[in-house]
Amino acid sequence: MSGKTLIEAFEQTAYPLGGNGPRDIQVLKEAFEAVQGSLSSDMYGNGKVIEDFQNKMASVLGKESAVFFPTGTMAQQIALRIWCDEKGLKRVAYHPLCHLEIHEQDGMKELHHIEPILLADKDRLISLTDVQQLGEEISCLLLELPQREIGGQLPEFEELESISAYCREKGIKLHLDGARLFEITPYYERSAAEICALFDSVYVSFYKGIGGIAGAILAGAADFTEKSKVWKRRHGGDLISLYPYIVSSEYYFDQRIGKMAQYYEEAKELAAFYNECAGIFTKPEVPVSNMFHVYFELPEEKMVPILTSVFETTGVGLTAWLRNTDEGTCLFEISIGDRYANVPKDKIREAFRLLGEKIKEAAIS
Amino acid sequence: MSGKTLIEAFEQTAYPLGGNGPRDIQVLKEAFEAVQGSLSSDMYGNGKVIEDFQNKMASVLGKESAVFFPTGTMAQQIALRIWCDEKGLKRVAYHPLCHLEIHEQDGMKELHHIEPILLADKDRLISLTDVQQLGEEISCLLLELPQREIGGQLPEFEELESISAYCREKGIKLHLDGARLFEITPYYERSAAEICALFDSVYVSFYKGIGGIAGAILAGAADFTEKSKVWKRRHGGDLISLYPYIVSSEYYFDQRIGKMAQYYEEAKELAAFYNECAGIFTKPEVPVSNMFHVYFELPEEKMVPILTSVFETTGVGLTAWLRNTDEGTCLFEISIGDRYANVPKDKIREAFRLLGEKIKEAAIS
Repeated sequence: MSGKTLIEAFEQTAYPLGGNGPRDIQVLKEAFEAVQGSLSSDMYGNGKVIEDFQNKMASVLGKESAVFFPTGTMAQQIALRIWCDEKGLKRVAYHPLCHLEIHEQDGMKELHHIEPILLADKDRLISLTDVQQLGEEISCLLLELPQREIGGQLPEFEELESISAYCREKGIKLHLDGARLFEITPYYERSAAEICALFDSVYVSFYKGIGGIAGAILAGAADFTEKSKVWKRRHGGDLISLYPYIVSSEYYFDQRIGKMAQYYEEAKELAAFYNECAGIFTKPEVPVSNMFHVYFELPEEKMVPILTSVFETTGVGLTAWLRNTDEGTCLFEISIGDRYANVPKDKIREAFRLLGEKIKEAAIS
Repeated sequence: MSGKTLIEAFEQTAYPLGGNGPRDIQVLKEAFEAVQGSLSSDMYGNGKVIEDFQNKMASVLGKESAVFFPTGTMAQQIALRIWCDEKGLKRVAYHPLCHLEIHEQDGMKELHHIEPILLADKDRLISLTDVQQLGEEISCLLLELPQREIGGQLPEFEELESISAYCREKGIKLHLDGARLFEITPYYERSAAEICALFDSVYVSFYKGIGGIAGAILAGAADFTEKSKVWKRRHGGDLISLYPYIVSSEYYFDQRIGKMAQYYEEAKELAAFYNECAGIFTKPEVPVSNMFHVYFELPEEKMVPILTSVFETTGVGLTAWLRNTDEGTCLFEISIGDRYANVPKDKIREAFRLLGEKIKEAAIS
């Protein structure tokens, strides 16, 4: 035992399994290498660099118009606000573990005074029945695909179509939290535009599977996106120059959009390695995107020395962090990107053999 | 007459007089040239790259703590909201041409429901008397130094001290819109920290005189800046990575902070050239920073062909735009940066000689 923290041991591994690479300044440098210095900055939402990318993304998402935002937090609050204002009703529905509910310091409530109805239990997906049984009227239903906080789960596409049809019938706007939209296209075997066609408004992120620096797109009909620009200014998101994020988003989008099927296959392979080990399981058992959650049937305190030892012996980095649950287990999230393909398979097998042995020892002792 | 628009003619001049240079991607490339690619990104407001710069700016501004924001729009709404919440009164006072009143799509009102009292007439500065004669209680007074929309004017420092003392006595928080704070230190012959000492909270910008890409700092006591981080998350301003703006802000800060006195002297010189011409005057007559407004006693329609001809004949670019006033005059704003020093003086004199002649001709005809 080395006394190292998990993150210290992870950072020294030769073969970290998740992600595209370190989040360092090289990410920016690489994206800008081939860009001409004389290219003009965008200016408060206008100019070729932002308009071209917005048009490209509108086309990818099959929407009339798209607006680049510094964050999804800003884009999604604004989307919900526009739909609430349109209906004159400040009530929406979303999953209990929705990003707006747990990661945004209640911005939607504090700034927009929108009341959310939490649909479904926190450990399962929203179903058509949940939507049909809504007791109160709402302006908008937000669906997150995949549902990140439960390991990245997805409803069947037919269920999604039924929810969409029901919402249209009832005059409920349907908004897609598509932070990881590109990552689910291989499972659904449908294009981003085909999935987005079920929704009135869509947010996508460029620093998840795409691996950009930061930034988001909000897309929908032109009257919707025009309103979103006014709110973007109000929120303080209408920067004079967003090109550092736009140029890098486009660079990594072009580089990785064709790799989503590969990441998905690799995620399934890695999840299988975990599920073969006694004392470990994944959620979902078979991933439906490039991400999943890994559960150990031992608490963090017991798992840290085991993992540290596996990292140091094999050079394979499984995770930089763990989080205890209330049930005496602990978990972490992994998203597959460029790195996984570069790790020799025998190294991965060695790591899992050792991990299995050490968990068995710990369970006996 | 060439039929060119003013901006087209301006963009072809060899000697534009204002600013630091074109707002293009070279601004980013230059700032990142010497930075190691292995330097880690900031992560949601944490990490060396953001913390070091925040500490440096807290020290420059003489405040306990500082937080980097994507925009001043976001930083200032949040500052006012914190002061309003502290007093339990959602009312503030500021100048009628305050940025929050005219450039932010009413974000402060729409998102924070704060009511502003407009102090002073729109064509003059806020005085101590204005503050003393406030009919209603307020939580915070915002002063913009220099007052940009009236040419960049400043109260005498003693007036500022009196306003500050009065506000402290009355329990009114004083917030500085210091978008151009560094630019006024030569006129006041005081450091940024000495000026900020009169204020409870301060915002500064990095893409005015400093010439960075975008970004702002909000500074004050630590409990104030801690609260501002919560609101930054709520606004959608807590980006996973702000380093593209932070690294460039620091690079250009270091490069230009020592040049503010030079820009100020050059602004006075250029304003004198304008004021020597019949039919032209500047506001203020003698600049107190690197900026001022230029008024022509002819409307835009008459001035465009004159200016276009001066640009084409002399290669000196005076302005890319004009705006008509209600009084039959037209105006533009200029801010002096790196470019001015590189323009040969005889070129400038030639441009003003020709400008004077052409205005005289136009006045006769």
